[in-house]
Amino acid sequence: MKHCFTEEQRTGVYKAIYERRDMRHFIPGNIEPELLSKLLTAAHAAPSVGLMQPWRIIRITDANTRQALYHIVENERIATAEAMDERRDAFMKLKVEGVLDCSELLIIALCDRREKYIFGRRTLPEMDLASASCAIQNLWLAARAEGLGMGWVSLFEPGAVRQLLKMPEDSQPIAILCLGPVKEFYPEPMLQQEGWIASGDIDNVLMENSWQQEKAKKAHQR
Amino acid sequence: MKHCFTEEQRTGVYKAIYERRDMRHFIPGNIEPELLSKLLTAAHAAPSVGLMQPWRIIRITDANTRQALYHIVENERIATAEAMDERRDAFMKLKVEGVLDCSELLIIALCDRREKYIFGRRTLPEMDLASASCAIQNLWLAARAEGLGMGWVSLFEPGAVRQLLKMPEDSQPIAILCLGPVKEFYPEPMLQQEGWIASGDIDNVLMENSWQQEKAKKAHQR
Repeated sequence: MKHCFTEEQRTGVYKAIYERRDMRHFIPGNIEPELLSKLLTAAHAAPSVGLMQPWRIIRITDANTRQALYHIVENERIATAEAMDERRDAFMKLKVEGVLDCSELLIIALCDRREKYIFGRRTLPEMDLASASCAIQNLWLAARAEGLGMGWVSLFEPGAVRQLLKMPEDSQPIAILCLGPVKEFYPEPMLQQEGWIASGDIDNVLMENSWQQEKAKKAHQR
Repeated sequence: MKHCFTEEQRTGVYKAIYERRDMRHFIPGNIEPELLSKLLTAAHAAPSVGLMQPWRIIRITDANTRQALYHIVENERIATAEAMDERRDAFMKLKVEGVLDCSELLIIALCDRREKYIFGRRTLPEMDLASASCAIQNLWLAARAEGLGMGWVSLFEPGAVRQLLKMPEDSQPIAILCLGPVKEFYPEPMLQQEGWIASGDIDNVLMENSWQQEKAKKAHQR
């Protein structure tokens, strides 16, 4: 193919895709400012609907703010466990965040005044979140290539984060990202490793020309 | 860094991130089944909240279905233009989709029965869309590395696509993906190239410890 990368470059892309993990375990260590800047610039190169670039990134360097974010996550962890009924105890045993342990803590939010961007969003306003998620995936993959782990924590009450960080009402926090050095990357998704849920077979998510009810059913059985 | 990739592999990752484009112009040509399968498997390796893997992929091989999708997009293109007032004519001049020209047409949807997945979604149910978007970004980057272009079209009425593809009410189509060989990748985002909107400065999206109103304002001025 004319525009194809070299074999080693393609290997890098697939390695990042397959060896990226949603990390919750971190080790001490700093990220050099140049490297952090390189990673955030890679995030900013993401596609966005109508080129609206809806992502905002709040870097947390204040220890009290980090502590407050930890408590917001801890409250939601408990609230989620309560909502889980019979899997409550198993859920409480999982390590679901590395907020206090990671080198860099980043809040990703959708910007204010999003209603003025109509391009590609008239019927699907949630495309702003889709774009910001692509930016986060860029960051995740670039971090993996650099040997750094990242975890996306969504266990939080958005209103609480908004208030803590003095964010406007029409902005929306979507991720607490934990980023930093790790001892090892999990060899498989941590939730599968811990027996919480198994990865599904790709065949069950692939359909042709219309929805296939039998496959759709199987995709939930794991 | 201990887990860092080789220099050439890292180059591959950044090259994919920076040279990926939201493509609307395609040239004739097929994608070998093995390569398509490789790309879709890369998408399926994306992170997902609580490992729910909410993405479903419907490959369109039927010419009539492709044609019907084209008309759904065309209807929404016109409806969007109507909603744009003074930019209406400029919008109508843009090429916003390559539905009939691309080699492979894929519908990405959020699966049915999503309400049963609470993990990381109690307060942020929209994390299913975030996960599926990460899968799409994986596909986009892998396609770029293989020399293939991709475009994410979100100009459609989800109900119309749902009905056409016999999808259940609680599933949600989020993307019409156009994938295939391209003559050239746009050197910069096509909407910037066409003078629609300029990319914003990364400095205006980066904040520290709390929301910064001045930066937030500047981020919208472009």
